[in-house]
Amino acid sequence: MKRLDIRDSGFEAEFSSLLAAREEQGQEVHGPVASILAQVRKDGDTALCALTEKFDRLPLSAEKLAFTPQEVEAARAQVSPDLLAALDVAATRIESFHRAQLPEGIRYTDDAGMTLGMRWIPLDAVGLYVPGGKAAYPSSVLMNAIPARVAGVERLAMCVPTPDGIINPLVLAAAHRAGVTEIYRVGGAQAVGAMAFGTKTIKPVDRIVGPGNAYVAEAKRQVFGHVGIDSIAGPSDVVVIADSATDPRLIALDLLAQAEHDELAQATLITPDAAFADTVIAAVETELKTLTRTAIASASWARNGAVLIVRSLEEAVTLANRLAPEHLELMVDDPESLFAHVRHAGAVFLGRYCPEAVGDYVGGPNHVLPTSRTARFASGLSVFDFLKRTTFLAGGPDALRRIGPAGVALAHAEGLEAHALSISARLDALAKTTPNA
Amino acid sequence: MKRLDIRDSGFEAEFSSLLAAREEQGQEVHGPVASILAQVRKDGDTALCALTEKFDRLPLSAEKLAFTPQEVEAARAQVSPDLLAALDVAATRIESFHRAQLPEGIRYTDDAGMTLGMRWIPLDAVGLYVPGGKAAYPSSVLMNAIPARVAGVERLAMCVPTPDGIINPLVLAAAHRAGVTEIYRVGGAQAVGAMAFGTKTIKPVDRIVGPGNAYVAEAKRQVFGHVGIDSIAGPSDVVVIADSATDPRLIALDLLAQAEHDELAQATLITPDAAFADTVIAAVETELKTLTRTAIASASWARNGAVLIVRSLEEAVTLANRLAPEHLELMVDDPESLFAHVRHAGAVFLGRYCPEAVGDYVGGPNHVLPTSRTARFASGLSVFDFLKRTTFLAGGPDALRRIGPAGVALAHAEGLEAHALSISARLDALAKTTPNA
Repeated sequence: MKRLDIRDSGFEAEFSSLLAAREEQGQEVHGPVASILAQVRKDGDTALCALTEKFDRLPLSAEKLAFTPQEVEAARAQVSPDLLAALDVAATRIESFHRAQLPEGIRYTDDAGMTLGMRWIPLDAVGLYVPGGKAAYPSSVLMNAIPARVAGVERLAMCVPTPDGIINPLVLAAAHRAGVTEIYRVGGAQAVGAMAFGTKTIKPVDRIVGPGNAYVAEAKRQVFGHVGIDSIAGPSDVVVIADSATDPRLIALDLLAQAEHDELAQATLITPDAAFADTVIAAVETELKTLTRTAIASASWARNGAVLIVRSLEEAVTLANRLAPEHLELMVDDPESLFAHVRHAGAVFLGRYCPEAVGDYVGGPNHVLPTSRTARFASGLSVFDFLKRTTFLAGGPDALRRIGPAGVALAHAEGLEAHALSISARLDALAKTTPNA
Repeated sequence: MKRLDIRDSGFEAEFSSLLAAREEQGQEVHGPVASILAQVRKDGDTALCALTEKFDRLPLSAEKLAFTPQEVEAARAQVSPDLLAALDVAATRIESFHRAQLPEGIRYTDDAGMTLGMRWIPLDAVGLYVPGGKAAYPSSVLMNAIPARVAGVERLAMCVPTPDGIINPLVLAAAHRAGVTEIYRVGGAQAVGAMAFGTKTIKPVDRIVGPGNAYVAEAKRQVFGHVGIDSIAGPSDVVVIADSATDPRLIALDLLAQAEHDELAQATLITPDAAFADTVIAAVETELKTLTRTAIASASWARNGAVLIVRSLEEAVTLANRLAPEHLELMVDDPESLFAHVRHAGAVFLGRYCPEAVGDYVGGPNHVLPTSRTARFASGLSVFDFLKRTTFLAGGPDALRRIGPAGVALAHAEGLEAHALSISARLDALAKTTPNA
């Protein structure tokens, strides 16, 4: 863990190296991934089954790729009613927030007599990648699938690896609650390839979303253009801005909730109170002793944890904007006034009783958020990921007479004669038929 | 040119191969581009100047990278007042449409007492790539820069290669009109690298937009994640749906306006009238004889042109949706009723007097549009490319009591103890301080 005080002379250099570390690219797996994608593209289901046997130690045949409705139902039956109820609370709130996001189109007629606008149209088919193994999170199934459903996507295909044949029943229960009925037990770059190019069993989709390991991320990068993809997820991170009025143990737990995700996860506290900072650091050490995921959380905190001491809460926001965190907690008396100055953050949690963990599960806004400082330009998953815009333009003779000549002039200037003629030939025809115009 | 009739038995196979051809990936330039990016990242301005000398035959030094205001003004002085006026018509209409696109945020308090929502925030810095040489289009400068300005982006950096030192004055005039003041005479993968990683002279940006050749496209793909990028542009295409009531020469010109862009450009006519189709084909041949860009347009039409004869206009729309064209013209009596069924198209042009060329210059909606059938999942450039969303969540003790327990249950189910504790420790504290709650 790095403890830096903004009043120290070395602060800027240390902070810059911290920023750079948060943007580091992952391992270079371009070659292996290209080879897997080529295999899947060429041999379809056969390649998919062979690769699944190789990487997930699961012998498969094409007809076993998909989970049957019976298998999903059986998995759901293993989940306690309490958990199903909790899943329902989460799903209902996620649905409600994403419905509020649905945008409206535009249509207007302007002074020149042109009617123009923009329509939002849902994608036809979307692929959801769900990691298996240690990061098999049912909450992520809800967060990926529900916005697609709310946007109006008709077909959702989900791929989840089942290493050694093991699946988390709650993942299937979450898929069921989110209305996903097409679920395949494949993962890795091969799953991305199958969804992008299609196989006999898995029809191609138009966009692939969902987090994954370095292979999945690289595969998404390589199929980008052929299909759409969401952001490429890096390690998760949180910045907590806190004054000294919150119980230090709560702040420590919020930091550790981030650290327990992954050894690469990054938890940062920014506070104007140096003594409070030290109390939180001590509380982190205490909590680490009893946490079940202490090995992961300890490694994350030791390597990537940071405590930044600043002169004021305003200065804390300035540093947070430079960090462009995935999650930002404002654990202060007047979080709204700080929030007004936040420019770069995936999601913001305001107030002492609204920790990030609430947003991870039951807040309503999406928990798939921009990592690795990409909140500078990227946004969390939303209905916008599952909609696209078609613009339109309509105009009759009068409108063409008014704006056409400028188009002809620009087309000539760009040396595009047919462009110019496409407009001027119509203007000529109009001049002949309506000599007074 | 392929002339296919939907009533012929081979139609589906031929149409499918046409679809596949339109998605073909470009040349594989991963290695060379990775090497260029690494050089720029390592040696900054020095690499940039060396690569510009190598590829653009232009000796440069770091202090000559940027165009001076005097150079921009001198270029502008070379442009005729008529052309500057045409540029202004275009810019004004583009501004107006993109202002209409500006979205509103969300904020509401729900039944559980949670306040939640989403804010739209402009990016800090955007890089615009503008191709030089044969595809140096001032209209594209307007189409890329104006939406960024309208979105509220503070810093716009533009890179345009000047092979042999040659720049189109109208490109600089367009940049000036669009308010771009930071312009560098570099292009290719090296320009993308400079904007993504920054050099001493060119500060890094958060997102890079604008079309380019295969090297530029691959460079954007490789820096994606480090910065945001727009879609990767393929060859331009148009689908014209026409009945027989439009002058065949006008339809021919619309097809050729696409074909003249590039030998890879794709122009497609879909019509229910076979005789009309043949008249248009003949008109294309006639016009090709006199066009200035006849070599390019002829090659494009010969290799990638298509005329599809269908049974009805409705069937024409079905095929157009499968083609997911960049541009779709509806040259029919009642274009609105056809438009209602359009699901996949970048931009639609309705009515006999509204050809695509109008939209290329002076319509108002953006002409940077999804190519290579990506209109299935992608959209044209817009203010949304220069904004990002930050979601937020605020709630007090009562809201936490209502939704917190479901979060605790899900966190436990996912094995994330610190997540659970982050919520439950707050609930415990509340239970102690307010025993009746």
